[in-house]
Amino acid sequence: MTPAATRRIRREPERGRYDRESLHAVLDAQHLAHVAWVLDGEPQVVPMLAARIGDRLAVHGSSASRTMKALAAGVPACVSVAVVDGLVLAKSVFDHSVNYRGAVIYGRFEPVVGDDALMAAFEALTEALAPGRWAEARRPSPKEMRATAVVTMPLDDATVKVREGGPSLEDLPASAGVWAGVVPFEKRYGEAVPATDGELPPSVRALSGTPTLS
Amino acid sequence: MTPAATRRIRREPERGRYDRESLHAVLDAQHLAHVAWVLDGEPQVVPMLAARIGDRLAVHGSSASRTMKALAAGVPACVSVAVVDGLVLAKSVFDHSVNYRGAVIYGRFEPVVGDDALMAAFEALTEALAPGRWAEARRPSPKEMRATAVVTMPLDDATVKVREGGPSLEDLPASAGVWAGVVPFEKRYGEAVPATDGELPPSVRALSGTPTLS
Repeated sequence: MTPAATRRIRREPERGRYDRESLHAVLDAQHLAHVAWVLDGEPQVVPMLAARIGDRLAVHGSSASRTMKALAAGVPACVSVAVVDGLVLAKSVFDHSVNYRGAVIYGRFEPVVGDDALMAAFEALTEALAPGRWAEARRPSPKEMRATAVVTMPLDDATVKVREGGPSLEDLPASAGVWAGVVPFEKRYGEAVPATDGELPPSVRALSGTPTLS
Repeated sequence: MTPAATRRIRREPERGRYDRESLHAVLDAQHLAHVAWVLDGEPQVVPMLAARIGDRLAVHGSSASRTMKALAAGVPACVSVAVVDGLVLAKSVFDHSVNYRGAVIYGRFEPVVGDDALMAAFEALTEALAPGRWAEARRPSPKEMRATAVVTMPLDDATVKVREGGPSLEDLPASAGVWAGVVPFEKRYGEAVPATDGELPPSVRALSGTPTLS
């Protein structure tokens, strides 16, 4: 990756990472992205489902939505994707923190054009969120394809910031005896709530017990 | 709340909510916020811990950080806070969705000024993330207080969007026999990883088994 020089992490710089593997790891672990752009000089940010397709990030939405129209038009965009892994409780309030993995990506989206490319993008998005589901569900009709837009952006101008491990431990009289440690977050899929008859399909059985995507 | 008329949810409008209770419920369930602003005409968005203090949203950070300086200066800001509750698997790929609760807040932050107000804000932020922790840990020193800024924004210009419940169920030959339902995400605190000796404090024991904050 070649993030602009101004992107370098200045606050807690040891947490900054600039390699593609670190970026992909965050994007593959968290499919909830917050996508920002500027409208009439004012910042806008909305949550969207996102998935990495190769070396680009894809989001989708209604072709008629204001957000998708702006993104498809190529406005400058900034995307934040973050996972919080746990609370870090230190002896001092000041040293309290959270463990997290976060990526911020700068760039412009471009629309996915053409039926074949669009169908491939739908498949990639579906499979990223629920592996195996594409083979199970009814695929998009021509009308549904027209109603849905997919846009993708490159992953070149991006930074990753990661905090992991235990708390800072100070040795001051005022903090003697204070318990410190990490309380991790556990995220997993719960029991499926069926809306139809029939056995759970392979995609749902495969999700069970795996970490959730957000 | 009195969101600007242009904020009304147009896409899936039945999911839009504009009452203060719905907004507070999202902000109290998710302390990971994505804060956007405009820098030199370009969008910026970063993840920050956030907590509601009464009828305002508070975020904190290093007094020296570029982000905190911009927010404290009162640039127009937009904040997205979202929780994803589960995957919604429908008979058609097109109808797949996620259950979620999201808030988008527009406004300008203002710095918390004065030692008493700042200390109260630190307490509120700490207690929002780990109830009971303020009484356990060493409190901020004057130097630590100078190193940390807290800014808050009003919660007037905001929208909430919620999707809940099961999938759309179509009755087409092409989707006959496709399993549909919801796979909920379960999020909870795991077992604490101590960095010190001593028994787990009340704040950590109280977290155990409760849903995580993000």
